[in-house]
Amino acid sequence: MTSQATGTGDVEVDALLDLAREAGPVLAASDPVRRAQLLDGLADALDAARDDLVPLAADETRLSRDRLVGEVARTSGQLRMFSRVVLEGSMFEAVLDDADDSVVPPRPDLRRMLRPLGPVVVFAAGNFPFAFSVLGGDTASALAAGCPVLVKAHPGHLGLSAATAELAASVVREQGWPAGTLAVVQGTDAGVRVLSAPEVKAAGFTGSVAGGLALQQVAQRRPDPIPFYGELGSTNPVVVTPAAVAERGSEIAAGFVGSFTLGAGQFCTKPGLLLLPVGHGLEADIEQAVSAAPSAPMLTPSMFAAYGAGLATLAEHTGTRLLATSAATAPDDGRSVTPTVLALSVPTFLADRELLGEECFGPVSLVVEYDGVDELRQAVDALPGSLVASLQLATEDADWVGALLEDLVARTGRLVVNGWPTGVAVTWAMQHGGPHPVTTSSLHTSVGATAPRRWLRPVAYQGVPDHHLPPALQSANPWHVPRRVNGVLTPAPVTSS
Amino acid sequence: MTSQATGTGDVEVDALLDLAREAGPVLAASDPVRRAQLLDGLADALDAARDDLVPLAADETRLSRDRLVGEVARTSGQLRMFSRVVLEGSMFEAVLDDADDSVVPPRPDLRRMLRPLGPVVVFAAGNFPFAFSVLGGDTASALAAGCPVLVKAHPGHLGLSAATAELAASVVREQGWPAGTLAVVQGTDAGVRVLSAPEVKAAGFTGSVAGGLALQQVAQRRPDPIPFYGELGSTNPVVVTPAAVAERGSEIAAGFVGSFTLGAGQFCTKPGLLLLPVGHGLEADIEQAVSAAPSAPMLTPSMFAAYGAGLATLAEHTGTRLLATSAATAPDDGRSVTPTVLALSVPTFLADRELLGEECFGPVSLVVEYDGVDELRQAVDALPGSLVASLQLATEDADWVGALLEDLVARTGRLVVNGWPTGVAVTWAMQHGGPHPVTTSSLHTSVGATAPRRWLRPVAYQGVPDHHLPPALQSANPWHVPRRVNGVLTPAPVTSS
Repeated sequence: MTSQATGTGDVEVDALLDLAREAGPVLAASDPVRRAQLLDGLADALDAARDDLVPLAADETRLSRDRLVGEVARTSGQLRMFSRVVLEGSMFEAVLDDADDSVVPPRPDLRRMLRPLGPVVVFAAGNFPFAFSVLGGDTASALAAGCPVLVKAHPGHLGLSAATAELAASVVREQGWPAGTLAVVQGTDAGVRVLSAPEVKAAGFTGSVAGGLALQQVAQRRPDPIPFYGELGSTNPVVVTPAAVAERGSEIAAGFVGSFTLGAGQFCTKPGLLLLPVGHGLEADIEQAVSAAPSAPMLTPSMFAAYGAGLATLAEHTGTRLLATSAATAPDDGRSVTPTVLALSVPTFLADRELLGEECFGPVSLVVEYDGVDELRQAVDALPGSLVASLQLATEDADWVGALLEDLVARTGRLVVNGWPTGVAVTWAMQHGGPHPVTTSSLHTSVGATAPRRWLRPVAYQGVPDHHLPPALQSANPWHVPRRVNGVLTPAPVTSS
Repeated sequence: MTSQATGTGDVEVDALLDLAREAGPVLAASDPVRRAQLLDGLADALDAARDDLVPLAADETRLSRDRLVGEVARTSGQLRMFSRVVLEGSMFEAVLDDADDSVVPPRPDLRRMLRPLGPVVVFAAGNFPFAFSVLGGDTASALAAGCPVLVKAHPGHLGLSAATAELAASVVREQGWPAGTLAVVQGTDAGVRVLSAPEVKAAGFTGSVAGGLALQQVAQRRPDPIPFYGELGSTNPVVVTPAAVAERGSEIAAGFVGSFTLGAGQFCTKPGLLLLPVGHGLEADIEQAVSAAPSAPMLTPSMFAAYGAGLATLAEHTGTRLLATSAATAPDDGRSVTPTVLALSVPTFLADRELLGEECFGPVSLVVEYDGVDELRQAVDALPGSLVASLQLATEDADWVGALLEDLVARTGRLVVNGWPTGVAVTWAMQHGGPHPVTTSSLHTSVGATAPRRWLRPVAYQGVPDHHLPPALQSANPWHVPRRVNGVLTPAPVTSS
């Protein structure tokens, strides 16, 4: 196992770029069955290595073993979902239009599908050392798309990243894939070198606003700019209606505290803002739940330091008051923190929304108290884009809920009613990404079955002889993919292999 | 009819932005039948006004009446195609995943669809005053997506743009749509003001590299950057194999000249580079065809001037030689030009590929002569991204054609075999857009059935009560759209309305 503090050197990075370039056409040409085999093989290997990897991850991230065991299952499940997505075949978006000489001008034979962009670089996140790291969603979706992957390891779990890379390399070797199918580099310099390389055709990033925007600039300022899919900080507002408070206020208070303290508040879907009506009377419930919450370590010492500074800024803001804090004492280990809830008014929020609407990564959340529905609508109008927006409603709620719901939808990628934003199901319908500033492109998702779309581009083939077409467009449909033929959607059975 | 040289003023622009913002939710909520009615109504109105609009267009653009009559038909046909696309419903990408309490963690009810981004700005092109202008593909696809449109008129046909806008406004009024559904502004300042406005959520552009990149900067440097879909200049290389020359060289020469001189060489799909084997012997054929080509006027005096400068740079390049020029004399009207073909070697092209690989808007094309397949591969490797790449093959051709074809696909959005790049069928399978630098996003198309995808973003709804869901996601499927339900594609019949 290697864990170089210095990062991967230029010579090694360039060698890995060469290998990724060579792997590109092989992955692009690989049929769905073979690509599914790779994804399933990686899933199986990850599950099999769980008991070796989890202790490594726990040591580096201080996340609990239970949580990490669950995350491994989520990550292997995600690889297997993409395996099913590839086999199902809709992701190729194959379309065939027959030639038609009867129209003016005559219509040529035209076929279109999505083709892989080529090697991609994935900047791993720190808070999900499995699910958003070396074998996480960006990697899995890129492999599903037929793109080789270079992962820039997160500095918070370099040992785990190296071990996961070795595991992946053995699967790649055993299955006979090119060596450049998947590789890991370490260090900011190596990451920027990969992102700047002409061999690399797209980038995925999950992390901080500052880091993401800096890397986006690198991607945009290349001689040939490439797509940069950045998932940055998100505040994930939760609106609670007065009727919902009346119906189940205590339950909502407990759910809120449970959600924002998950993983020491280090979820990208953490509810960072809870909008409650003035006079909600839930102070005691929130206090009780927060008071009972234990201390928990942050992922890295630098995140600990950043959280301390961010929390101090919020707490010292003249418009905020302390609503609840934990009774636990955090050990003086340079990592551990306890949860905090601050409260403020809508006018305070509106007056300083840049600061107060920004994610503070760690176990703090803000209760914004609204005085009437007009003030609530004003607050919602001032919300930045988010990954998730939530709405706690009563069984029978006010008429204005419909319009409020549309306002929330305009500012988010996922709307949750009577649930909590943490917890991201890996399914066909998931959307993880939303309007500025939360992701650099709101048109795509980094979780769920459509995530491979980020690594694919459409290509049309006009009058191309059958044997020169990609298999998904050949008349015999050897890949068994669903296709649109002369405008009509024609589902194809999943191949039985 | 208004045709202000000064451009639309700030106050008027802001009023139009207000109207567009108000129209947004109405268009977004409109059902497919109603949206199709708008697109069909615009198509019918355009066809009905053809004999009034074509003379206007001919006067402003100097394009021939026959060509413009054909373009009106193409444009109304395009509006009707998007009407069918909306009714078919796949473009909403509706996905439903049922809740599942049996899995760990329990899976919530999750539904996802594409929703309109909101008002978009379209920067019209000069070379297709109907098909890429006020009621062109960007506008039609945005309306299909449910987005209001603000068109920045091209200065080359302001009168036609105003007349088309009036026509559209009357359809909008008659059908009871909001006034902000479609509007036209004039002048660069007005265009930049619209592009910078917070009400506007995306931009489409067809035009020059310099203009497109400048506007892209505006879009990217907004406080909230928005997607900018720019179609810039393209060289559209055509590779002719030695076997194809042997089999039908004269036919290829004639086809080439016919294609690059279409519309006075002012097609974005003009073949700007013809790669022929050294010793092809087609000089006489090309000369004969070019010699017989008449003079034709450029769209605007400034395009005439730019073409003159561009042609001079190419002709005076030490590595080029004149291969063919027209026998016609262009009238000294400050608009008219005659076609020219220059020839050069692959080493010349490689040594100065930035200059020689750039589009020169007008009736000039370069014959690049390759000395053997290795040199051909080198030239192809050096090609910039293009909208279309073409390959002229013989019935039985060389083994290396397959690899060459893949190299071309890597550099283009559409590959044509044994055809010419001009002519863009408006169908389900069309792709119009390709790798850098030809479009600012190679992941999308500006022509064909998937063009609305640019103006849509995915939104997931988790646990949202049925009556708060958009119709496409409601359990009863009142919009009759195809949906993916628990992973299975379930086509729905087109509504009979």
